[in-house]
Amino acid sequence: MPGRHFLFVPGPTNVPDRVLRAMHRNMEDHRSSVFPELTHGLLRDLAPVFGTTRGRPFIFPGTGTGGWEIALTNTLSPGDRVLAVRNGQFSHLFTQAAINLGLNVSTIDVPWGDRVPPDEIGAALRADSAHAIRAVLVVHNETATGVTSDIGAVRQAIDGAGHPALLFVDGVSSIGSLPFAMDEWGVDAAITGSQKGFMLPAGLALVAMSARAMASTAQARLPRSVFDLRPMAAQNDAGYFPFTPPLSLLYGLREVLTMFAEEGLPELFTRHTRLASGVRAAIDAWGLALCSRVPSAHSDTVSAIVVPVDIDARTVIDVAFRRYDLALGGGLGELAGRVFRIGHMGDLNELMLLGALAGVEMSLADAGYDVPLGAGVAAAQRVWRGQPAAATA
Amino acid sequence: MPGRHFLFVPGPTNVPDRVLRAMHRNMEDHRSSVFPELTHGLLRDLAPVFGTTRGRPFIFPGTGTGGWEIALTNTLSPGDRVLAVRNGQFSHLFTQAAINLGLNVSTIDVPWGDRVPPDEIGAALRADSAHAIRAVLVVHNETATGVTSDIGAVRQAIDGAGHPALLFVDGVSSIGSLPFAMDEWGVDAAITGSQKGFMLPAGLALVAMSARAMASTAQARLPRSVFDLRPMAAQNDAGYFPFTPPLSLLYGLREVLTMFAEEGLPELFTRHTRLASGVRAAIDAWGLALCSRVPSAHSDTVSAIVVPVDIDARTVIDVAFRRYDLALGGGLGELAGRVFRIGHMGDLNELMLLGALAGVEMSLADAGYDVPLGAGVAAAQRVWRGQPAAATA
Amino acid sequence: MPGRHFLFVPGPTNVPDRVLRAMHRNMEDHRSSVFPELTHGLLRDLAPVFGTTRGRPFIFPGTGTGGWEIALTNTLSPGDRVLAVRNGQFSHLFTQAAINLGLNVSTIDVPWGDRVPPDEIGAALRADSAHAIRAVLVVHNETATGVTSDIGAVRQAIDGAGHPALLFVDGVSSIGSLPFAMDEWGVDAAITGSQKGFMLPAGLALVAMSARAMASTAQARLPRSVFDLRPMAAQNDAGYFPFTPPLSLLYGLREVLTMFAEEGLPELFTRHTRLASGVRAAIDAWGLALCSRVPSAHSDTVSAIVVPVDIDARTVIDVAFRRYDLALGGGLGELAGRVFRIGHMGDLNELMLLGALAGVEMSLADAGYDVPLGAGVAAAQRVWRGQPAAATA
Amino acid sequence: MPGRHFLFVPGPTNVPDRVLRAMHRNMEDHRSSVFPELTHGLLRDLAPVFGTTRGRPFIFPGTGTGGWEIALTNTLSPGDRVLAVRNGQFSHLFTQAAINLGLNVSTIDVPWGDRVPPDEIGAALRADSAHAIRAVLVVHNETATGVTSDIGAVRQAIDGAGHPALLFVDGVSSIGSLPFAMDEWGVDAAITGSQKGFMLPAGLALVAMSARAMASTAQARLPRSVFDLRPMAAQNDAGYFPFTPPLSLLYGLREVLTMFAEEGLPELFTRHTRLASGVRAAIDAWGLALCSRVPSAHSDTVSAIVVPVDIDARTVIDVAFRRYDLALGGGLGELAGRVFRIGHMGDLNELMLLGALAGVEMSLADAGYDVPLGAGVAAAQRVWRGQPAAATA
Repeated sequence: MPGRHFLFVPGPTNVPDRVLRAMHRNMEDHRSSVFPELTHGLLRDLAPVFGTTRGRPFIFPGTGTGGWEIALTNTLSPGDRVLAVRNGQFSHLFTQAAINLGLNVSTIDVPWGDRVPPDEIGAALRADSAHAIRAVLVVHNETATGVTSDIGAVRQAIDGAGHPALLFVDGVSSIGSLPFAMDEWGVDAAITGSQKGFMLPAGLALVAMSARAMASTAQARLPRSVFDLRPMAAQNDAGYFPFTPPLSLLYGLREVLTMFAEEGLPELFTRHTRLASGVRAAIDAWGLALCSRVPSAHSDTVSAIVVPVDIDARTVIDVAFRRYDLALGGGLGELAGRVFRIGHMGDLNELMLLGALAGVEMSLADAGYDVPLGAGVAAAQRVWRGQPAAATA
Repeated sequence: MPGRHFLFVPGPTNVPDRVLRAMHRNMEDHRSSVFPELTHGLLRDLAPVFGTTRGRPFIFPGTGTGGWEIALTNTLSPGDRVLAVRNGQFSHLFTQAAINLGLNVSTIDVPWGDRVPPDEIGAALRADSAHAIRAVLVVHNETATGVTSDIGAVRQAIDGAGHPALLFVDGVSSIGSLPFAMDEWGVDAAITGSQKGFMLPAGLALVAMSARAMASTAQARLPRSVFDLRPMAAQNDAGYFPFTPPLSLLYGLREVLTMFAEEGLPELFTRHTRLASGVRAAIDAWGLALCSRVPSAHSDTVSAIVVPVDIDARTVIDVAFRRYDLALGGGLGELAGRVFRIGHMGDLNELMLLGALAGVEMSLADAGYDVPLGAGVAAAQRVWRGQPAAATA
Repeated sequence: MPGRHFLFVPGPTNVPDRVLRAMHRNMEDHRSSVFPELTHGLLRDLAPVFGTTRGRPFIFPGTGTGGWEIALTNTLSPGDRVLAVRNGQFSHLFTQAAINLGLNVSTIDVPWGDRVPPDEIGAALRADSAHAIRAVLVVHNETATGVTSDIGAVRQAIDGAGHPALLFVDGVSSIGSLPFAMDEWGVDAAITGSQKGFMLPAGLALVAMSARAMASTAQARLPRSVFDLRPMAAQNDAGYFPFTPPLSLLYGLREVLTMFAEEGLPELFTRHTRLASGVRAAIDAWGLALCSRVPSAHSDTVSAIVVPVDIDARTVIDVAFRRYDLALGGGLGELAGRVFRIGHMGDLNELMLLGALAGVEMSLADAGYDVPLGAGVAAAQRVWRGQPAAATA
Repeated sequence: MPGRHFLFVPGPTNVPDRVLRAMHRNMEDHRSSVFPELTHGLLRDLAPVFGTTRGRPFIFPGTGTGGWEIALTNTLSPGDRVLAVRNGQFSHLFTQAAINLGLNVSTIDVPWGDRVPPDEIGAALRADSAHAIRAVLVVHNETATGVTSDIGAVRQAIDGAGHPALLFVDGVSSIGSLPFAMDEWGVDAAITGSQKGFMLPAGLALVAMSARAMASTAQARLPRSVFDLRPMAAQNDAGYFPFTPPLSLLYGLREVLTMFAEEGLPELFTRHTRLASGVRAAIDAWGLALCSRVPSAHSDTVSAIVVPVDIDARTVIDVAFRRYDLALGGGLGELAGRVFRIGHMGDLNELMLLGALAGVEMSLADAGYDVPLGAGVAAAQRVWRGQPAAATA
C-alpha cells in the first residue's frame, strides 16, 4: 500500500529513522578492548530513565516477559509467597509467570479498568503477620486498559503495614514514557522492554534492581541460568556480557538514550501528557468512554476505548487496518471486542496523531458508529493549537 | 523534534522506505560485464511512465532544469526561434533557460493560474508562415500554480496550424503522477526529474525524446558536451553510460519502477486523483480558493491556495514548519506571500494527508485566519471514507 | 580507522549488507491479520537448515545459551540425571547450565581439542541399566577448540546401548554452516543462535525439537515461563508469538533463509569446506598447529591455532586489532593465551580470508614469531586458485 | 556471490558504511529556514579540501565531466583559444569537451604514461605573444595511466612566460586523496566529482573557482543555463540552491567532510602514500611495470599495470571479476588490453588491499602469467608491517 503505515498499537512503537540508522551496522567483537565503553555508557545512561541512582540496571536479550522472570528467579525460592494485583491482561500474565515458576501466589483482583488498590495491598500485608509474603507484584501502567497506578502509594502501603516485602513493578508501557521514580518509590525490581517507550524493536529486557533485591540473589533458590544476575553483574562490571549480546539493539539503545538526553526526560514526559490530552479530548468528542474509570489514572501512553454495545471493536480495527493502513490495538482477554486501543507513546507528534485520529473516525463510521467526522480531530486540535515552538534537537 | 516530519512541499517528495533501502548499497564497477542488465532494464521500464513506445528515454545526472537544457541544446541551433508559454514560475524559468542558451524566444503570457492556451499557440504558429519557429515550449503541470494543461490540445493546435514545430513539455510535477501520453500527444521532448512523482532524491534528469527530436540532434549546433545525447545513446545501447552514473539513484530508480509496476500506473493515477479530490474538498471547507481558475485544470499533484488579503502566506508556512513540523510550499515569484502550496504526489495515503490538513488548519488559525478547526479534515474524510480495501503490493 | 573492519572472531559474524537492509524497517503490529505469513514462512524454511522434516523449529528472543535452557527446562524435571561431554569451553558451559537448573549431571571429560567420544558415551549408558539418564548433552562443533564431532556416531552409541536417553546437541557454530542432519542423527533438541552461521546479530535462540522431546514437555517439571514451549507452539500454530517478537531480527532471518535457498545448502556447506581448507593450508605453512588433534575433526567454521610457547596469543590478537583492524578470537578458559581463533563461517569469500590471513601473518611477525610473510597466503591461494565461476545469486 | 565484493576500480570507490547511513534519510524542504545551515557548512568545509581560502567552492548535480563544462562555459566565449595537455584518456576527454563547446583548442600531446610537461607549456605560452590563449587545461592525476603531475610547476611555467592564461585543473582522482593546493599553485578552476576521493556515489560535480575565474564570468559568452555560476553563487550566499539539490548526496558529503576532519587531511594524504607504496612493492614483486614512467609521478590513488605482451589484460580483469569477485579497472583508449588498473583511494586499509593483491595474483596466474603466488602480498606486507596504531576516529 502506498504511503506510510500508521502504527498506533501500544507496542511495538515507531522506531525513529535515526535509531534504524544506528542499528544498521555490521557486528564487532564483543570481547574487544574497546567494547566496555559501549557497555558502561549504556548502563550509566539507563539508570536515570528508571529514576534510580542506587539501583542497578541490566540489559538482557528478551522481552518484558523475560524481565518478570529475571526479577522473580533471582530473588525468590520455590514455594515463596508473593502478592499480585490483577487489574488487566498484563498483570494477569505477570501473575501467571509467578505461578509458572513455582511461587505461591495470592492475588488481589479488581475490575479491569481500575487501578492498583494500595489499601487492599496494605490490608493483605497487615494480615500477613508472619511476613511470609516475600514480594508484591504490580503493573505500573496496564497496557490492556490504559490505567496508570500510583506506585508511590503502593510503597507507602507496604511501609505503612510495617512489612518487609519487596516491590516488583512492571513498567513495560511506562518506563521511558512516563515519570518513573524507582528510588523515591522504593521499587525493588523495575521491569521493561525495548519496544515501547524505548522506541526500539522488541528483543531487550531492561531491568533495574534495588540493592535489597540484589542482596537477595545469594539466597534465591529458583533455578536460573541464562537469566542469572550474578554472572551478568560480574561481566558488566568489566564492560562485557556473559554471552554474545544483541549488538544491533545495543547500538539502537545507545541512540535512544542519546535522544532522551537531547529532548530531556521532563520534556519527554510533558510531551506524552500533552499528546494524550488531545487524544482524550477526541475520544470525548466521539461520545466514547475510556476503559480507565478514574481520570487521574488515565494513561498518557495508551488509551483503551470502549465501543458501543452494538459495535464489535474488532470490526473497527479490521477496517482501520485494511482500508486506512492504520494499526490499532485490540481488546485483550475479557476486553476482546469491547475496546480498541490507541498507543500514544514514543516517537510521536501532533500531526501523526491527528492523522491517526482522523483514521479512527473513518473506521468508526465505516463500522456503523455515527461519529461526526472531524469532531475528534477538532477537539485534539484545540488542545494542541498555538503551542510554542518545540525545541529542536 | 520528536516524531515524523510532515513533508508536503511539491518536491522533493517523501522517499519510500523501500527505496531508501534500495539506495543503501556500496558502489560497483559501472563498466562490468553485468552492468548492462541494470541500464537496459531501467530504460525499458522508464518508457511506459512517459507513455511512449516510440520515443527514447534518457537518464542524466541533473534535475529537471538540466532536462530543459538537454532538450534544447540537442535539437536547436544558436538563434533558432522557439515559442514559449508562460503561466507560472516554472514556465517562466523554462523560457529563461531558452534565452540563456541563445535562442530567440517568443512568449505567450497568460495570467498565472491559467492553463496553456492552445488557441493562442495555434494563432502564433499560423502567423509563422515561414515556419521559423522550431519548437513550442510548455509546462504540463505548473508546480507554482497547481494548473494542469491539456497537452493533447496543444499538439492539435500545432497540427491544426500545419506547422512542423517540435513540442517540448516540462512534466516535472506530472510524469510519474499524472497520465502522460507522449506518443498520443505527439510530444517531442518530455522532461522530468527524480524528486517528485518518482519519489527519489533530486539528482536525475529524466528525458524522453521522439524520433523526430533524435533526428534533429545531427543538425543541432548549440554547444553541448556533458548533455550531448549522441554519446549517451551509443553507450546506452551497449548498456553503459559515457561517464560514471549516479549509482545510488539508479538503484533507487530501479525500485521505484518496480513499485510503479506493482501498483499499476492506472491505479497510481487514480489514487492521485482521489487524494487530490479530498484536499480540494478541505480547501473549499476552509473557504479558500485555489490559484488555479478552471476546475478541469486543477492539478492532482499540487494545490496552490490563495490566502485572504490580510494574511501573509509566509506566516502560515512559518508557523506550520516551526510549530507542527509541517513543510508547505511557498508562493513563487509574483505569488510570494499570496499562496501556500500543498504537494500531494508520490508516496502518500489518506492518513498522511489528513495529518497534514489538520496541521494546515492549526497553522491558518495560529496565523489569524478564522478557520473552523476540523472542517477541512471532515470534508476530506467524507471524500475518502468507505473506500474499498487498497490492493496490497 | 579508515576502511573496512576485518571481523574474524567465530561469532558474531559479518552480517551481509542485504540482511542489514532487510532489518532496516519500522515495526508493525505483530497481532495483525497478515503477520502469520511471516511466522509460518520462517518456521517452514528453518526446518531444512536443521535437517529435519519431523522435528519442530522454534524462534525465541535469546542466544544459544537460552537455547540450552529451552531444551532442558521443557523436557526434564528437578534432579533428573543427564550425561554431558566436556571437550571445550562451550560444552563446559552447557554442562554448567544443566547444573544451574538443578539437574544431576554426570560428565565425560576429554582433553580440549578432542572430539566427543561415542564409545565412552555408550559405555556410560550401558552402565546405566536403570535408564536413569534422561538425556545426553554434546556440542557438535566446539567453538573454543575448532573440533567437529560425529553426532551420528553418538546416536549410534546411544542406540547401541539400548538406552532411551534423549540427545541434545549444541550446534551454535555448526547449524547453518555445516551439514546437520537432525532427523538422520536422531537429535532430540538441536540448539543454535542467530549470530554465527545465520549471519545475523545475536538475539535469537533457534531450537528444533523432536517429537519425543515435544512429548516430554507435558511431564517436565523444571520451572519455566518465558521459555515454555507449549504456549509458543500454540501461538506459532496460529502464526503468532506469545509475546512481542524481535521483529527486526525476524526480518533479517527472513532474508537469511532466502539467501540459504538461493545459494543452496549443499553449495553453502561445500563453500565452507573449501574456505576452511585454504585456512588450514595457511596455518600449516606458518608452521603452526591446530588445537584440534584429529584431521577428520577439524572444524570448517573455526580454527583454533596454537602459538609457540614463547608467544602470548593475546599479544597477537591485540596487535591484529590495534594495528590492522583485524578481530581474532581469543583462547577461552584453559586455552587463554595459548591459542587464537579465526572464524571462517557465514558471509565470507576467498579475498576476505586472504586479507585476514595476511593480517594474521603481520600480527604474528609483529608479536615476535618468525613467520615468512606471504607464506600462508600463498598456501591458501594454491588451494583456492582456478576455481570455476561461482554461481551468481 | 557470498561475501563482500572487492571494489578496486579507480572510481567509483567504496562508500563507507557511515556515509551510506548518513544518506539513508527522507527528504526535506530545500527552501526551509533551517536549510542554509547545511549549505553554508558544506561550502565552508569543502574549501580546505581544495586547498583554498581565496577560491570559491561550488556543488552541482553532475560528475567531473560536468565540472569541466562548468569551468569552461563560465569563463570563456565561443572561439576562445585554450591550450590543453593530453597524456591519457581523461585529459583527452577534457580536451574533447573544450572542442565540443566551441573553443579553439591547441594541444600538447605527450606519450600516455608521461606527466604534464611544464616546459612545453611555457614554450607554447611564450610563443603566444598576443596572449590569445585564455586558459591552460591539465589533469592533475591521470586516472587512465596512474600519473600525477606537478601543478605548481605548471603555474610557474605560465608565470615564467609572463602569460595571463587561466589554469584549469582536473583533480577528479586527486582532490580529497592527494595534496591539492589551489591557492599556492594558482589554480583558477579545480574540478572533481564525488565518486573517488570523496567516497560518495557519483552525482556531484565539485568545483572551486579563483577570484580571477569568477571575475571572468561576467564577460564569458559561452551559452550556459543550468551550469551558470552566477545564480548558483547568489543562491549559495543565502544558503540555498537555484534548483532542487541532490539532498542524499549532500547528506553524504556532510558526513565525508566530517570524516576528513576527524582523520585530518595530512594524515589522509600520508595514508594514501603508505598504501600506494605497498601496492607498488607488490607490482614490482610480480615483475610487472607501471604505465607511469617516472617514479616521482607514480600516482598514490591509482596504479595502471602493464601486462606482458602475451597476456590480454581484459582476461585478467574478467577472471578477477567472475572467479574472485574482484573489480579491477581496465585499460582505456589506446591502453585497452595492455593495462589493468588498481584503484587505491578513499576508504581503504591494508587488509582490504592485501585481499585485493592476493586476488590479482590468482587472476594473473589463472590468466597464464607465471606470478609467484604470495610474492606481491609479501612485498606489500613488508612495507606495511609494524605500523604504529592508527588513530581511532
